Amino acid sequence: MINKIGSFSFAAFVNRVKEFHGFSAPGVILGGLLVDAALKNLPAGILYDALCETDKCLPDAVQLLTPCTIGNGWLRIRPWGRFALALYDKQTGAGFRTVLDPERLEAFPEIKDWYYKLKPKEETDPGQLLEAIREGGAGLCRIQKIQIQPALLIREHRGKRVICPQCREAYPDNGNGACPACRGGAKDVYRQ
Amino acid sequence: MINKIGSFSFAAFVNRVKEFHGFSAPGVILGGLLVDAALKNLPAGILYDALCETDKCLPDAVQLLTPCTIGNGWLRIRPWGRFALALYDKQTGAGFRTVLDPERLEAFPEIKDWYYKLKPKEETDPGQLLEAIREGGAGLCRIQKIQIQPALLIREHRGKRVICPQCREAYPDNGNGACPACRGGAKDVYRQ
Repeated sequence: MINKIGSFSFAAFVNRVKEFHGFSAPGVILGGLLVDAALKNLPAGILYDALCETDKCLPDAVQLLTPCTIGNGWLRIRPWGRFALALYDKQTGAGFRTVLDPERLEAFPEIKDWYYKLKPKEETDPGQLLEAIREGGAGLCRIQKIQIQPALLIREHRGKRVICPQCREAYPDNGNGACPACRGGAKDVYRQ
Repeated sequence: MINKIGSFSFAAFVNRVKEFHGFSAPGVILGGLLVDAALKNLPAGILYDALCETDKCLPDAVQLLTPCTIGNGWLRIRPWGRFALALYDKQTGAGFRTVLDPERLEAFPEIKDWYYKLKPKEETDPGQLLEAIREGGAGLCRIQKIQIQPALLIREHRGKRVICPQCREAYPDNGNGACPACRGGAKDVYRQ
């Protein structure tokens, strides 16, 4: 049973998720448990970065509970589809990874049914599901020490901005003579 | 001159950025102008998605001013390095793209110096820079109608979750026999 997620009461976190994410998605609430468990293991006072192993739901829990956001670059995403995240010291790369433990879901059929889509969505009772997540709490998470590869700790510095000769917009110079959008990216996104 | 960004007063938005992004980054404030301009052009009451053409700063402006977040999937990022974003109708793909207009920066040397890194960071007065952004307002943005490629309007549905035989964690079945992390992704991120 968990009563607080980060500095929020469980109910306050559910509301905050509704506000930010658009609805009180079980994935973000469950993500909150993972973030909370990782945070509790980090030494106090360090500067840390985050890495999510899925782009679904979990990144929003990180953005609500830590200083790491997608726009400030302290949160990275690897879309592997694993419901796991790492928080680690920016300097040393030492940290903790937390993951929803499949074995521990056995004791929580509401969560298991939702997670593995074993029941049609309409048959899921959202209140019961959230209550099960609250009851499961930190007990749903497995936690392990990790060490991030040194290459990921280096911040790339972008080149100075230059004007692309094709679109006439600014982009960080990469020595390719045109921005990545004009070099092929844009045609997959925008219709001409 | 702009007094409101989304539903925030300029000063309230600056505070909200500080809270969420960690500091009142000029890029997120400027991003707020782009989001605000695009929002004002969208028809009322439609459901829309967002696409950012940079992963720096701008995505946080989108997350603060719209229902689109990285975790709910309504915000996509293409890291092309262009300071531009599109908001578009989820169903039809019709929408608006806004971009910081290099030509209009000529009248705002504080913004130009910061954007093109023409002056060392220490010589930038953050207050003056924010005031220039406020003064420039919507006049700093160029706006264009866009149409998103139909392929981007289709939501991929993930397969059911299965247990990866290597890491024993759950991932959406992709027919490859193991999760993307075990198939090579993890070794670039975590030290064994």
